[in-house]
Amino acid sequence: MDFWDHIICLDNKFKVIFVAEIIFMSKILIIGAGRSSSSLIDYFLSNAKTHSWHITIADTNKQAVESKISKYQDVAAAVAFDVHNVALRESMIKEADFVVSMLPALMHGEVARDCVRLGKHLATASYVSQDMKDLDKEAKSKNLLLLNECGLDPGIDHASAMKIIHEIQEKGGKVTGFKSFCGGLVAPESNDNPWGYKFSWNPRNVVLAGQGTAQFIENGKLKFIPYNRIYTQIETIKVEGYGNFDAYANRDSIGYKEPYGLTDVSTMLRGTLRMPGYCKAWNVFVKLGLTDDTYKIKNADALTYTDLLESFLPKGNSSVKEKLVAFMGSDINAEVMAKLEYLELFANRPIKLKEGSPAELLQNLLEEKWLLKEGDKDMIVMQHQFEYELKGAHKKLISSLVVIGDDEVHTAMAKTVGLPLAITIKNFLTGKFKLYGVQIPTVKEIYEPMLTELEELGIRFTETEVA
Amino acid sequence: MDFWDHIICLDNKFKVIFVAEIIFMSKILIIGAGRSSSSLIDYFLSNAKTHSWHITIADTNKQAVESKISKYQDVAAAVAFDVHNVALRESMIKEADFVVSMLPALMHGEVARDCVRLGKHLATASYVSQDMKDLDKEAKSKNLLLLNECGLDPGIDHASAMKIIHEIQEKGGKVTGFKSFCGGLVAPESNDNPWGYKFSWNPRNVVLAGQGTAQFIENGKLKFIPYNRIYTQIETIKVEGYGNFDAYANRDSIGYKEPYGLTDVSTMLRGTLRMPGYCKAWNVFVKLGLTDDTYKIKNADALTYTDLLESFLPKGNSSVKEKLVAFMGSDINAEVMAKLEYLELFANRPIKLKEGSPAELLQNLLEEKWLLKEGDKDMIVMQHQFEYELKGAHKKLISSLVVIGDDEVHTAMAKTVGLPLAITIKNFLTGKFKLYGVQIPTVKEIYEPMLTELEELGIRFTETEVA
Repeated sequence: MDFWDHIICLDNKFKVIFVAEIIFMSKILIIGAGRSSSSLIDYFLSNAKTHSWHITIADTNKQAVESKISKYQDVAAAVAFDVHNVALRESMIKEADFVVSMLPALMHGEVARDCVRLGKHLATASYVSQDMKDLDKEAKSKNLLLLNECGLDPGIDHASAMKIIHEIQEKGGKVTGFKSFCGGLVAPESNDNPWGYKFSWNPRNVVLAGQGTAQFIENGKLKFIPYNRIYTQIETIKVEGYGNFDAYANRDSIGYKEPYGLTDVSTMLRGTLRMPGYCKAWNVFVKLGLTDDTYKIKNADALTYTDLLESFLPKGNSSVKEKLVAFMGSDINAEVMAKLEYLELFANRPIKLKEGSPAELLQNLLEEKWLLKEGDKDMIVMQHQFEYELKGAHKKLISSLVVIGDDEVHTAMAKTVGLPLAITIKNFLTGKFKLYGVQIPTVKEIYEPMLTELEELGIRFTETEVA
Repeated sequence: MDFWDHIICLDNKFKVIFVAEIIFMSKILIIGAGRSSSSLIDYFLSNAKTHSWHITIADTNKQAVESKISKYQDVAAAVAFDVHNVALRESMIKEADFVVSMLPALMHGEVARDCVRLGKHLATASYVSQDMKDLDKEAKSKNLLLLNECGLDPGIDHASAMKIIHEIQEKGGKVTGFKSFCGGLVAPESNDNPWGYKFSWNPRNVVLAGQGTAQFIENGKLKFIPYNRIYTQIETIKVEGYGNFDAYANRDSIGYKEPYGLTDVSTMLRGTLRMPGYCKAWNVFVKLGLTDDTYKIKNADALTYTDLLESFLPKGNSSVKEKLVAFMGSDINAEVMAKLEYLELFANRPIKLKEGSPAELLQNLLEEKWLLKEGDKDMIVMQHQFEYELKGAHKKLISSLVVIGDDEVHTAMAKTVGLPLAITIKNFLTGKFKLYGVQIPTVKEIYEPMLTELEELGIRFTETEVA
């Protein structure tokens, strides 16, 4: 509702104007206050007064939330969240006007069904799931927003890519190829382990990354890369000022042809970035089977990580290290070996979990080895590569983003996941766009104000035309 | 109830005996009359009169069932089965005393829950699922049998292995190693394609075989082989009179330590047999990703199988065949190439399905190429290898089974899957064993009469002591 709607001219002659300030208080419920939520929560808290928001933050760790909101008692409250308590979840959602789910993606379905049934808007940073799609029609009919893929990747990638695609199209150009890469990495100044990697987000997702089959289009042809060789078929991506990165294909790129309006593009690929050499080393785990999450190893705490490694190797009389070298053949070298040794894989390090899938046991080790230490800075790198035709000429445009975190809590990951979501929710609540049902930030009304505010906050792409 | 219980001596002196013949009619419901059910159905039909059974056979194809039972109208009936019609399923189960589910394994859960609720016994040839385990307690409390893993593999393998394990133990011996292999193959006289393979059972299971991670114990150590290399880490198994076979590790062998009573065995492996060379060729599909069943390729009928193959290969300017050879490196040879060429993979053969996962598209091709033709005979091969210690000596015993089918309908597969199940149900109904809850044929009361009758029917193991 516009400000001027509330100005009632009582008397034209004397211009006595009566202004009724009507406050629309919005109650925002944030479920999940984990690693990626810090910037999102900060944004809501610091903007709460201006926009008359009341923020409720629900998390299993209520105490941790309380310490975060201590300076904002007047506009925020912490509540305990229990994923198994359906009645509690429902009553919390009933109280809210807008729900933000920062829960693991698998749990969005339940929350989304509650929201639509109870008439509440919902936003997540996760991929649009089948659950979400199934709710689209009902949400639209009730004028409810189901905002998804509005974090970093997916999120900022969609927004920034669509901005350039629309600009090229508005100039009369035609996009023929689109590649987009993103990685949550560690900043050069904090890069002190041979993997060049530390966890700035859900470790489980890093360990399971790439499972399934990557699907993309290359030179007009459908392309598939299954998990068993996803870390071997990599390309090298150069980012000005930051050097080279490994890039491997990520999930289903083909499904984005339509939302991006690139239905007859001949190359379409989305990929994930890692420091050079990471993929060759991670491929050892894939080839061994150490990232399998489909079965549990019992009494795992009776084993060492060296035993675990050996259990995936063919039998032989040599040492575990020698057997691994023989098994990997040309897929191993001194650099890979240094990475494995850094993880103490040959040092008979005991496994601490009583039971777990190979992936869980590996994650438990990595969480210790790849921890962001106090003062450590993470780094987000994103790069889009556009090929397009304009007035008969073939052109190439590269757009890159690098964001460095402040410290191990205020990470670049938390900023780039949380801010686009928070900004877009604000834009919706303040009436900057009126879209309902399942939405992702590929439409101008959503991405334009989002990118403008992100730039003000220092999250800004650099564009380069390539010959 | 014993015959003599019904003899009532009316007058001792004159020995006038009155015999009351009490008929206990059992109503048996068989759900699913597909490929593997023919011998099971024949057995029930031909034994129905003797045991006062009435057989109801439910299948989506009611007509096909009617032709099978035409000579048994007095003891059998055909009914149409619709997997989505819960009320129909329930009413059919309500009518029965004993239910045999020959449905795909995933559908046993629903049937089992109905059976236990309605107080009916159930038998399947499939692996014990979590659904089954969850029903164990309730079934036991109601004196209901939930018989599982009572076909060929699992089934005859359990029975025949346990017989020997118990014999060794009864002689005071100790089993130190156990390996067991089984394959549903094609008989030498019908082996006329380079793969040495034709479908004698569910083609889908053949295409997806090996997915997951194989788990076993070798020389006292846990061993895991993930799907990506299951067809490369094979061993060669020799069966007297039938030559060599490829063997790859199958699923979770470790879980059978306890049911087999071999808790401190140092080697425990269950494996699958294929003709020599099959695994090296099938590995091409695994490495490419062609057996993936997790996503659908849309508009597949616009592609040829050569296009499909190419979509899994890295880009390049050479022919699809040349690219495949370069991609596979030392994992391909002339024999493998002959197998791929037999499938017309380089011949631009059109895909017939409108949509399907890579696995479904491959299956569609193989169903045509690997069809059991009229008069074709299939072959079941099973081999157990026992290592044991007896009176200080280290011994090895090999027990092998070969069954050749009669023709493309009365297959060795149908016999070896259906007969152990049918025989065991008969033994239960005639009171030969009284066990309830989840049971598999590892106990003497079940396996002994089963193996005896199978021998009478020509399904007989040969044992050889090895030096």
